[in-house]
Amino acid sequence: MTLATTPATDLTGLRVLLTQADTFMGPTLSEVFTAQGATVIADTRSLADDPAAAAAAVADAGHVDVLLLHLALPAPATAAQDIGEAEWRSVFAHMVDPMPRLVAAVLPQMLARKSGRILLMGSAAALRGQKRTGSYSAARGAQLAYMQSVALELAPHHIQFNAIAQNFVANPTYFPPSVQANPRFQERLAREVPLGRLVGAEEDALFAAYLCSPAAACFVGQVFPVSGGWALK
Amino acid sequence: MTLATTPATDLTGLRVLLTQADTFMGPTLSEVFTAQGATVIADTRSLADDPAAAAAAVADAGHVDVLLLHLALPAPATAAQDIGEAEWRSVFAHMVDPMPRLVAAVLPQMLARKSGRILLMGSAAALRGQKRTGSYSAARGAQLAYMQSVALELAPHHIQFNAIAQNFVANPTYFPPSVQANPRFQERLAREVPLGRLVGAEEDALFAAYLCSPAAACFVGQVFPVSGGWALK
Amino acid sequence: MTLATTPATDLTGLRVLLTQADTFMGPTLSEVFTAQGATVIADTRSLADDPAAAAAAVADAGHVDVLLLHLALPAPATAAQDIGEAEWRSVFAHMVDPMPRLVAAVLPQMLARKSGRILLMGSAAALRGQKRTGSYSAARGAQLAYMQSVALELAPHHIQFNAIAQNFVANPTYFPPSVQANPRFQERLAREVPLGRLVGAEEDALFAAYLCSPAAACFVGQVFPVSGGWALK
Amino acid sequence: MTLATTPATDLTGLRVLLTQADTFMGPTLSEVFTAQGATVIADTRSLADDPAAAAAAVADAGHVDVLLLHLALPAPATAAQDIGEAEWRSVFAHMVDPMPRLVAAVLPQMLARKSGRILLMGSAAALRGQKRTGSYSAARGAQLAYMQSVALELAPHHIQFNAIAQNFVANPTYFPPSVQANPRFQERLAREVPLGRLVGAEEDALFAAYLCSPAAACFVGQVFPVSGGWALK
Repeated sequence: MTLATTPATDLTGLRVLLTQADTFMGPTLSEVFTAQGATVIADTRSLADDPAAAAAAVADAGHVDVLLLHLALPAPATAAQDIGEAEWRSVFAHMVDPMPRLVAAVLPQMLARKSGRILLMGSAAALRGQKRTGSYSAARGAQLAYMQSVALELAPHHIQFNAIAQNFVANPTYFPPSVQANPRFQERLAREVPLGRLVGAEEDALFAAYLCSPAAACFVGQVFPVSGGWALK
Repeated sequence: MTLATTPATDLTGLRVLLTQADTFMGPTLSEVFTAQGATVIADTRSLADDPAAAAAAVADAGHVDVLLLHLALPAPATAAQDIGEAEWRSVFAHMVDPMPRLVAAVLPQMLARKSGRILLMGSAAALRGQKRTGSYSAARGAQLAYMQSVALELAPHHIQFNAIAQNFVANPTYFPPSVQANPRFQERLAREVPLGRLVGAEEDALFAAYLCSPAAACFVGQVFPVSGGWALK
Repeated sequence: MTLATTPATDLTGLRVLLTQADTFMGPTLSEVFTAQGATVIADTRSLADDPAAAAAAVADAGHVDVLLLHLALPAPATAAQDIGEAEWRSVFAHMVDPMPRLVAAVLPQMLARKSGRILLMGSAAALRGQKRTGSYSAARGAQLAYMQSVALELAPHHIQFNAIAQNFVANPTYFPPSVQANPRFQERLAREVPLGRLVGAEEDALFAAYLCSPAAACFVGQVFPVSGGWALK
Repeated sequence: MTLATTPATDLTGLRVLLTQADTFMGPTLSEVFTAQGATVIADTRSLADDPAAAAAAVADAGHVDVLLLHLALPAPATAAQDIGEAEWRSVFAHMVDPMPRLVAAVLPQMLARKSGRILLMGSAAALRGQKRTGSYSAARGAQLAYMQSVALELAPHHIQFNAIAQNFVANPTYFPPSVQANPRFQERLAREVPLGRLVGAEEDALFAAYLCSPAAACFVGQVFPVSGGWALK
């Protein structure tokens, strides 16, 4: 089978470590990646408090072909003048601090094999401002900039590090049914999201699967917005 | 078969109109799209001279689910002070002027069906400058900006218009074997392209197939660089 | 007087060639640049029809330190399926085709002096899509991509080529008083422009003056959005 | 005196709070802003360790028209697999954590007056990757994304929050004379920086002065790269 006839999302034989597997996009990512043939190591431990948790997650996973860097938290909605120490610390402890630990833990085996893929499930909140999301946007910005830098180091070792930057993707953490049913949210969707609807969680996960597949070995340090046209770069 | 288990590039049943099918990325696009199940209408007529040629190509194609807007020309290498009327006119006649004609010709059937996909095979030369490519970059910039605007009009009609912006993709028009074998080109590749190699033509075409597949219905007005990390947005 | 104490927009002694000086931003640019000390050569000839007009404008101007590449046209509001040959041709004839001619005509003297500044008064319509502006956006996209490319050629010769990409700037061509007074336009402004008002024509022209001043010799190939936060990159 | 004849960087009468005034760009910013007429409150206390230091700096400054958010640290050069807790913590403690504290402390008086300006002296390391700068780039990315979000909240209150994203600006922290004299650095400059030289510290500071002047009231949430063309958006 040549590349031309390969189903582009075939993940057969790949071991994928997925963090925070039980929240946010975790369940859908797990389902879709498994359906595409991957062996998903669905880690659910908290990575926020214990600095050693990240390394333990990687050690427990064993062989990791793909690291799905999936770190999420419901976005606090706080005006800039009211963001306090506790909020700032919590947002960074959940979404930023575990990131370099996970990468540092998984790199030795990937560097040794000169092969690997890291995909950051990031946020378009880092690409385009939204009101009252100062702490959340900052953390998401840290993620993307870290990826852009580290990706350049890893590319010569045949390890591709890229990111999805999503927003307006249907998922229970950010857009629970109660929000989706709200007429004001529907209006906002119509006004701000050119697609005119939320992106489906499976659509997003399938794109992630594509980016982790052998067919997509040509991307380096790239941010892929998935936001129905809300953010474009 | 649910979305989760769909091979993401399955194009079975889709009729794809590919322009300039015998040059540039044409042959590889044709091969890959066909391998993924599409019926490719491989148009090879010149679209540069006769303003009616675009509409004729669409008329001859009949039902078109996907328009692959593939307009290319070897890039002239001319210093800005030496770009003359003939070069400017030729570059725009080949790569820019046929674009709105093709879109206008294909839209009536897509609007009537409230369904369709247009993918522009654009260039990263519009995203990041290169010396001595003033005319070529200008034409490529016109393409991307046109797409971004028209995509917003078409999204409410369930027609998705997006673009690949490629550079450093192996293909006989821009990187013939003689260029690839040149040590100075190899040095440039190592220095400027984080991937460290040319993107394969099949890798690029497979990504195009993904973006034209039913699985990728969530993108609107988006530019996807495919350049081994040379241009990122 | 050191750089630190220089008024940053002092243009004393600079000869500035301004095209289309009687339309769009022309009158305000002329007034502000003159007030800042420049000698403005306010050219008002049509550059759209006669390919020789651009070179004649430069020849008539004599010594040109700064070329203000100011090419504008009211944006047609046409759906993509209705854009015809005449509209496309007119938009490119006015805003795109004269650009390389003006640059080619002015470069010999700038290259000889190893000094010069070119500022493109471009549009943010090339950065972010708007509906029913396919032809206009395409032309504006050609402008910015041309600048990005040519700027790299000119930088080693100490000629800086940059662009303003404006939208929502008060000026009689695009936002006449009748439009500004329209309540629906006021609503759009409140919704889409974070600044909450049109940018003043003088604010825009003063920024152009800054970018053409000796104090701003450090920018190369850069696009500066001026759109009240509507487009950010 | 109308806007047209105003020297665009006139800061007469403005009280500017500059943090880390004795390091990085601090001395030049202080000198240039003072030369342009501002009263500079040059704060030099460490903001990294004591969470209360930021509020104290603002309280001690009294009336603040302009907050120059100037937070810097020499960039560690560490491979991703070697970045440890201490480095990560230090980088964020110096460059990220004080930012929301300073903004929260200064906002009450700015909101009460419905007037103010905040300029982040950020880094282009957040816009384009560099090897071995994972921690530094992450922190710089957090800064820019925070600014983009908070700027949208503040604009309706006539407070403009924008950022410079600089790199390759001559300053003793990042480019000491020993680095500048290094032939390998000179080669890198020639290869990567289209300007062909470092941006002067005064050129950078004067642009900052422009962005803080009354003449530049039209920018919202915008990132202005100052990097000699290295990063463009």
